[in-house]
Amino acid sequence: MVDAVPQSFEYVLSSMCTEPHPDARIAANRFLATNPGDPASYPEIATIESEVVDRLGDIVGLPEPSGYVTSGGTEANIQAVRIARNRADVDDPNVVIPENGHFSFRKAAELLGVEFRPSPVDDDHRAAVDAMADRIDEQTILVAGVAGSTEYGRVDPIPAIAALADEHDLHCHVDAAWGGFLLPFTDEDWHFGHAAIDSMTIDPHKFGRAAIPAGGLLVRTASQLDALLIETPYLESGHQITLGGTRSGAGVASAAAALAALWPTGYEDQYRTADQLARWLADQLRDRGHRVVDPHLPIVAASIEDDTFAALRDRGWRIARTARGELRIVCMPHVTRARLAAFLADLDAVQ
Amino acid sequence: MVDAVPQSFEYVLSSMCTEPHPDARIAANRFLATNPGDPASYPEIATIESEVVDRLGDIVGLPEPSGYVTSGGTEANIQAVRIARNRADVDDPNVVIPENGHFSFRKAAELLGVEFRPSPVDDDHRAAVDAMADRIDEQTILVAGVAGSTEYGRVDPIPAIAALADEHDLHCHVDAAWGGFLLPFTDEDWHFGHAAIDSMTIDPHKFGRAAIPAGGLLVRTASQLDALLIETPYLESGHQITLGGTRSGAGVASAAAALAALWPTGYEDQYRTADQLARWLADQLRDRGHRVVDPHLPIVAASIEDDTFAALRDRGWRIARTARGELRIVCMPHVTRARLAAFLADLDAVQ
Repeated sequence: MVDAVPQSFEYVLSSMCTEPHPDARIAANRFLATNPGDPASYPEIATIESEVVDRLGDIVGLPEPSGYVTSGGTEANIQAVRIARNRADVDDPNVVIPENGHFSFRKAAELLGVEFRPSPVDDDHRAAVDAMADRIDEQTILVAGVAGSTEYGRVDPIPAIAALADEHDLHCHVDAAWGGFLLPFTDEDWHFGHAAIDSMTIDPHKFGRAAIPAGGLLVRTASQLDALLIETPYLESGHQITLGGTRSGAGVASAAAALAALWPTGYEDQYRTADQLARWLADQLRDRGHRVVDPHLPIVAASIEDDTFAALRDRGWRIARTARGELRIVCMPHVTRARLAAFLADLDAVQ
Repeated sequence: MVDAVPQSFEYVLSSMCTEPHPDARIAANRFLATNPGDPASYPEIATIESEVVDRLGDIVGLPEPSGYVTSGGTEANIQAVRIARNRADVDDPNVVIPENGHFSFRKAAELLGVEFRPSPVDDDHRAAVDAMADRIDEQTILVAGVAGSTEYGRVDPIPAIAALADEHDLHCHVDAAWGGFLLPFTDEDWHFGHAAIDSMTIDPHKFGRAAIPAGGLLVRTASQLDALLIETPYLESGHQITLGGTRSGAGVASAAAALAALWPTGYEDQYRTADQLARWLADQLRDRGHRVVDPHLPIVAASIEDDTFAALRDRGWRIARTARGELRIVCMPHVTRARLAAFLADLDAVQ
């Protein structure tokens, strides 16, 4: 195994992971043998984690943020639903999630014994708020909005969803796992400063250029985290709110390093480059006769024949499809125009 | 932050984490930007993960193992309880866990909506099987045994617990998160080859010398994992059994590298060194008048005054206590006789 090599990112076009920033790599390696889950033994990395949370607060419009660096967006979404479940006083809790929500909400619901209520999206793949309202009943504990959806890069109408939550006294969660490092450079209303959001997922290890694992859970008030407390008899810290026990200091340190290097100018440059690339790719695919879902955040979805898709996979392209079978290209920082030109050349060759 | 440095392991005496093996460090760095949670995009690391599972099978007496590399022992314990919950057909499930069980079982129970039933230990801090039998009723879904307990390094009577589970048709889980890389070199009966165990936690990132995060969940039959399946619409792999979504390829690759370098001879050497060190430390502390819990696996617990403990923490020692307030030293590979001698000198100086 020691001689094995990982994939080349040259062919990875459908992933929300990317090459970490060079500073993030260095920090991950330096803090590889640290455990923020045991702050009495590893206080240095625990301090860095609180700095990461503060910096994420700057991004999401939360001057006094609480939260922690999760193993990824799935853990953050699970924990948001867990907070809502543990604070609510209902017998048969349910959560109302738009159909563009990440599958981790289904996982969270299954895990936590909560009913999952999907709610339809509109013609532009965004949450239909009226439909969400119809699904709410007295057993509903949480509604979620997506700020940068996995399949089409759409941003749900977050202020309207937060108003709906407020009207029914529900927990309002926003999943900005992927979009959170892009949206500050758009005119979208998506964060704690824009609406009465209770919690948010925002992952440094996606567009934030941290190393895996570095997700993020942020909550508006520290007391929300009390709903997650488990006592830890043999750790001097006394209790734990995280889903895991031992956790990755590499992820935490790399998030701190990436944020220090890139917020805000570097992230803005990344966003503008990706945005232009996605629009160019959309035009290229449209010119070739594909039906293209207009990119909003830099994800391009386009119709593709099964045979064509299979032939491109055979040529080594690491590509994936939406649930509706569309080719889905995520313009992460490692995706360049040269690589997309090579991909398009192969597309022309096989179809 | 980029200039921050992690703790020195010279002072870390109560952690179950340690310095990774040099090969594990190299592998972690090489596979830092890979995601085994998306095997269609990152097949290289997915292949390595299946090799790790096979190798862990060699250690735990399971010729055809199934499972995966978790984020740590907590995830593995959660997933074992989740398998049991999802396969059982009861209204109000409970799990019977000895009091020496890791706090992650409480976390799992809280998360999964399962009643947690602690069961007392005997005078030697091992599960009392008769007491476990008394706590089982028709709503019980799982019993667990610990093979290398967190506080005292004890091994529960696993064959008797497995027989109890078999008698009541319950899921039998063994938590060997820390002990699994030590026990092969003892004459304990602890693994799948010794008893009718259904699932096991065994963590490469503890005594296995992998980098964090690399825990392990193993199950006797692949079909058990079906109870964890969640559909993944936009990934070509189609479904997911893990608690997280994006996962650390660094952890997986480092586990493979550590196993290749150390199984079995290197691990045996590590065990013998740690065992001798623990016995030496126990004698040293006993000679100084401390009440010492005899080490079994290489953890030493000894009575200590609060003032003494605080003074040692003030001198920089990263030490922790058991729930009963005993000093608890875990003889991990980074803990040497020279460092323990320095610790004892400070102990002599402050008390």
